[in-house]
Order: sequence, then C-alpha cells, then structure tokens
Amino acid sequence: MRPIIAPAFYRVAAEARSAFSPHAILQPMIDRSALCDELTATWHREIPIVAAMGATVESYDGRSLAVRTPMEPNRNVHGTTFAGSLYSVCVLTGWVAVWLALREHGLDGTIYAAESAVQYRKAVAGDFVCRCTTDAEALDAGLVQLKESGRASFDLACTIDHGGKRAVAFTGRYVVHAKRP
Amino acid sequence: MRPIIAPAFYRVAAEARSAFSPHAILQPMIDRSALCDELTATWHREIPIVAAMGATVESYDGRSLAVRTPMEPNRNVHGTTFAGSLYSVCVLTGWVAVWLALREHGLDGTIYAAESAVQYRKAVAGDFVCRCTTDAEALDAGLVQLKESGRASFDLACTIDHGGKRAVAFTGRYVVHAKRP
Repeated sequence: MRPIIAPAFYRVAAEARSAFSPHAILQPMIDRSALCDELTATWHREIPIVAAMGATVESYDGRSLAVRTPMEPNRNVHGTTFAGSLYSVCVLTGWVAVWLALREHGLDGTIYAAESAVQYRKAVAGDFVCRCTTDAEALDAGLVQLKESGRASFDLACTIDHGGKRAVAFTGRYVVHAKRP
Repeated sequence: MRPIIAPAFYRVAAEARSAFSPHAILQPMIDRSALCDELTATWHREIPIVAAMGATVESYDGRSLAVRTPMEPNRNVHGTTFAGSLYSVCVLTGWVAVWLALREHGLDGTIYAAESAVQYRKAVAGDFVCRCTTDAEALDAGLVQLKESGRASFDLACTIDHGGKRAVAFTGRYVVHAKRP
C-alpha cells in the first residue's frame, strides 16, 4: 500500500518551513495551498478516472475541504451530471478529508472507504463543488482511538449544492489502519 | 430528456425481427445480444466518464444483467479499484436494469437514481463484473404502479464479487416518470 502523497509532498512541506523562522520547525507547518495543488497532481497522476473527471482541490482551511469538478466530462444522457461522478467526487473528498486530518495531527495510516449512502435530491447541470467539513469532536475521538488501538473509523458527510439548494447528500464511513513504523 | 437508446436501437430490433418468421412480428422480439452492444455504444458515446472506465454490457438474459469493467483505467493509489468506479458501475447497472425492464414490457419513462447505499467488503484487484438480477414480483408491482399512476420506484441490488467472495454490495432506488405520448 502506498500513501496517496508521494515524497514530493514532504519536499513541499520542507520548502514551506524553510521560508519561515526557525521556530516554525518546532511546530510542523503545513502550506495548505501547496498541499491542495499537490493533492490534485497526485490524483491526476495516480487515479486515472479522477483525472478524466477533472476534479481538483479548490480549498482547504484545516477543517473544510472543497473539490471542484467540471460538468462536461461527467455529463450523462440527460445533459446533467452522471450520478456515478457525483458520488465518486464525494467518496474521494471524504477520503481526502480523513487523510488531511491525519496529516494535520502528524499521523499516518491506510484509509479505506468502508460504506456509504447518497441521496440525489436535485439534478446538477453545471460545474460543481463538493464540500466536506469535519466535526472537531468526532474527529478528535477517532484520532485518539487510532493512537490507542491502531485502528479507527470516521463518519463524514459531503454535500454538493446546485442553484442554491442541496443537490447531493453523501455520508461515508472510512476505516483507518495505523501504519507500523 | 432524451432516452438512453437512440433510434438506432429500434432499427436493430426491426432488423432482428425481419430475420425470423412473420409470426415474430406479432410478439415483439428483442435481440438481447444486439441490445447489449447498442447499450455499450450508447454509454461510450453519451456518458464520457463511463467510456473512460471502459464498462461494457457483457450479458442480459431478460432478468440478469452483467457489466464488465477493466481495472486499469479504474485503479487507485493502492493498486486496487477506485471506490468511485465500483459504485459508478453499480449505479449504472441498476439504471440499465430498470431501463431494460421497461423496454421488455413496452413502456417508456425517464429514470432517475434517487438514493443508494454501498458496502465495500473486500478490495477489488482486477477486472470486475457487476451483476444485477431483478426480482420478478417487485418488478411487476412497480410496472403496474407506473402504468396506473405514471410514476413508480424500483429498489435494486447490484453486486461485484472478487476471488469468489462478495466485494461490493450496492442497493439503489430508482424513480421512473412515465413519458407522456
């Protein structure tokens, strides 16, 4: 099993650190903008179908993650967005939200999508943004569990809105196995 | 909203009928092998991401539908199959199973994926086949409802096995609105 982020990420993080004062080295510094670009590059290099979908990480502020996807490569026979693409971007966004949470806390693990459910409430006709905001309390509980037992599960919700209304509501359970040093 | 099958399907069916005795014309004849090829061609022409996944209709016997997909374009960072691709093929297979059931009964409607749930029980490392078998009794009830009210919902299960074991278990609810003549 390979981590989603190749060694290039560590290089980016190291370069970001070196641009700040030496104190920054004491508290690990994450350049979130560079991380978004690196994640997108990794997806497009290592997950061909995500490259075909054109999904890119738009923003990440330490708690909320937004992934933008163009409609054209994801269109269906109705001229709206294929249900499979809407779901795929959700399951990927949730996966990456877990990955980022581990990263922010200096942890490493292999993350699996275990189960999920999705509701399609409205057709999506246009480029779309998938959002995932982690719940701080639930996240902390999962991280403690992971440190103590080497295994944890995280329940996340992702959403896609269209025309000011909720179009897709996704919930996913992700299981993490800590990596042994 | 356009039907998934372009007029070419009707041409294929008409050609198939003409190869049989005149009596076949009295009872509409479906050339299921030609239909599988036509469905695949339609997907690849009209749903670009399904073309990128490489999914093809392998077989359909009037009740069971099998869709085959190669792993390579659907690989993830772990060297197994991307969860989004596994789901996408399931939601598509269920959609087409509903479409075929309507077709077999001489009905026409617009089909929407409304909601679904999926469990990932085992990683899929290799080409995979998604199967959907309709339940005759539930299907008939839905078709009666559609004829009577112009609207019906169908609950379907799709599965993907790997190495002789269930790898993915999907359930989906599809809503059909009858087309007005």
